[in-house]
Amino acid sequence: MNAPNIAIVGATGAVGIEILRVLERRNFPVASLKLLASARSAGKTLAFKGKPHTVEEVKPTSFKGVDIVFFSAGATRSREFAPHAKAAGAIVIDNSSAFRMDGDVPLVVPEINAAAIRQHHGIIANPNCVAIVAAMALWPIHRRNPIRRLIMSTYQSASGAGAAAMAELTQATAAALAGRDFAPAVLPHPYAFNLFSHNTPIDPATGANGEETKVINETRKIMDAPTLRVSVTCVRVPVLRAHSMALTVECAEPITPETARAWLAEAPGVRVVDDTLRNHFPMPVEASGGDDVLVGRIRADASDPSGRSVALFVAGDQLLKGAALNAVQIAERVLQ
Amino acid sequence: MNAPNIAIVGATGAVGIEILRVLERRNFPVASLKLLASARSAGKTLAFKGKPHTVEEVKPTSFKGVDIVFFSAGATRSREFAPHAKAAGAIVIDNSSAFRMDGDVPLVVPEINAAAIRQHHGIIANPNCVAIVAAMALWPIHRRNPIRRLIMSTYQSASGAGAAAMAELTQATAAALAGRDFAPAVLPHPYAFNLFSHNTPIDPATGANGEETKVINETRKIMDAPTLRVSVTCVRVPVLRAHSMALTVECAEPITPETARAWLAEAPGVRVVDDTLRNHFPMPVEASGGDDVLVGRIRADASDPSGRSVALFVAGDQLLKGAALNAVQIAERVLQ
Repeated sequence: MNAPNIAIVGATGAVGIEILRVLERRNFPVASLKLLASARSAGKTLAFKGKPHTVEEVKPTSFKGVDIVFFSAGATRSREFAPHAKAAGAIVIDNSSAFRMDGDVPLVVPEINAAAIRQHHGIIANPNCVAIVAAMALWPIHRRNPIRRLIMSTYQSASGAGAAAMAELTQATAAALAGRDFAPAVLPHPYAFNLFSHNTPIDPATGANGEETKVINETRKIMDAPTLRVSVTCVRVPVLRAHSMALTVECAEPITPETARAWLAEAPGVRVVDDTLRNHFPMPVEASGGDDVLVGRIRADASDPSGRSVALFVAGDQLLKGAALNAVQIAERVLQ
Repeated sequence: MNAPNIAIVGATGAVGIEILRVLERRNFPVASLKLLASARSAGKTLAFKGKPHTVEEVKPTSFKGVDIVFFSAGATRSREFAPHAKAAGAIVIDNSSAFRMDGDVPLVVPEINAAAIRQHHGIIANPNCVAIVAAMALWPIHRRNPIRRLIMSTYQSASGAGAAAMAELTQATAAALAGRDFAPAVLPHPYAFNLFSHNTPIDPATGANGEETKVINETRKIMDAPTLRVSVTCVRVPVLRAHSMALTVECAEPITPETARAWLAEAPGVRVVDDTLRNHFPMPVEASGGDDVLVGRIRADASDPSGRSVALFVAGDQLLKGAALNAVQIAERVLQ
């Protein structure tokens, strides 16, 4: 493919803006750029490589002549407009959950399953942000010593609920510091100096919420591990833009922390931050704005005497590797 | 014992002040009250039942005529002064880690092992705050269906590091909101909109930090479960005064979430907050200032097909049940 004509649906959102920035700094070849959003955001101007671009309202006819479309405007918008983009001949890279579990839609983290891209039928799905960050830390282990069981607790940032949630966190916190009341409008619970179980609906059959169900299903699909046993607790914490998680990983064969650390240290897109002497481990402030997924606290799981389990603590930028960066990396592979 | 003469060592600290308040509101019988602290805090005045009390510097001779002493001034201070208090005939209720694992020191959560108090030799230890909150949620299960394995990830508040850490969290957050630099002085890492692995030293033999080692050892001792297999990841989150934790609990026999919920619902000091329809579960802001440990997200552990595991999410006030309230409850049992 020559330099493609690009469109971004949801260009003014937290992820859309990061996609623009990632395209710029990775020098992604762009013949033309179309910024699309809801009617509410149409008319806004965003800069790309120093030039202003006006945001247009997304319509079924928006995709004529477009080669690659990034969708990041929620599952409803993807379901409505991705078929039009596909029909117009564009390749859709979809950041929503709309198509992720469809059998003919590849769900891709390029460091893990780039080869799956070739099987696309016009749509390639970008996984859930927790699933991406977790899979980056799991895959270097899983590909050598298959993971049988995974227990995960997350510490998820406001950015996972979009720019409005990030603004609500700062506003609620400013109000709390000033002793003012604050009524949350974006998220259902107080967010200042508080945390809460992820606010997606609970499936009565499993007890898992929507986020947890996504993480379970998508981690399995990305790593092609359909029988992986997974338990996840998803929690929103008052952090702005990086997700953290504690992982307990049981492998098929015995594994030492040293082996896991060595495998992680050589994995692309992963940075081991595991300085036990200085007590320096992955932190959201250090993951934020960076491309790498940080992994540390690599140790034997003290509750498994079989020697087959290790524990990890992980942090990754939700907007970058968890969303925009991974989407652009998929597009780079599409061009190859 | 008639109304006892009481002393508090560390009276001006975050926990010391809560002990005063808990004694007041529970109408604990107090014949006399002596407030003790370091030389730095001597001369300060604190009110008890409306009357001002002047803080004195703690000295080896401070304990003459005292019946019960609450220590909450750190392990070093406890090791130095508790022997003097004991020698003077006082019963020590120690909130530090100094004596918790000593064979002749009961480690007590009254709802769980009040009977152990009778075996004291002058010192009764108040457990680590995470261990107390976790044990409150585990015991109602463990006493009917013994827990074999526990995997825990914590979301710990600033109060666990004292009043200065709480102040640092608010100051660091105010600075971040104003775009000002802030150099942390109490904790080793940035705290505003950030989280980090607990800053106690890592044991190279196990990979566990000091907090995690306490939680493992103390949970076993409180529940008299010396062979319980425990893995813990302790993380400080930007929350002011309640600890939360995600628990994965494997029992000896099969257990349903309904059974676990019923056992927890009737446990004293526990409140089930598990409204899956309204997505309302334990939160630090709702645990703060309350005596109960909140337990919710009670569900089957999806990663254990044997049906013997449940997952829980728990929140409890670190300063109350995690420290001051539990210490005063121990004193109440001593009086009985």
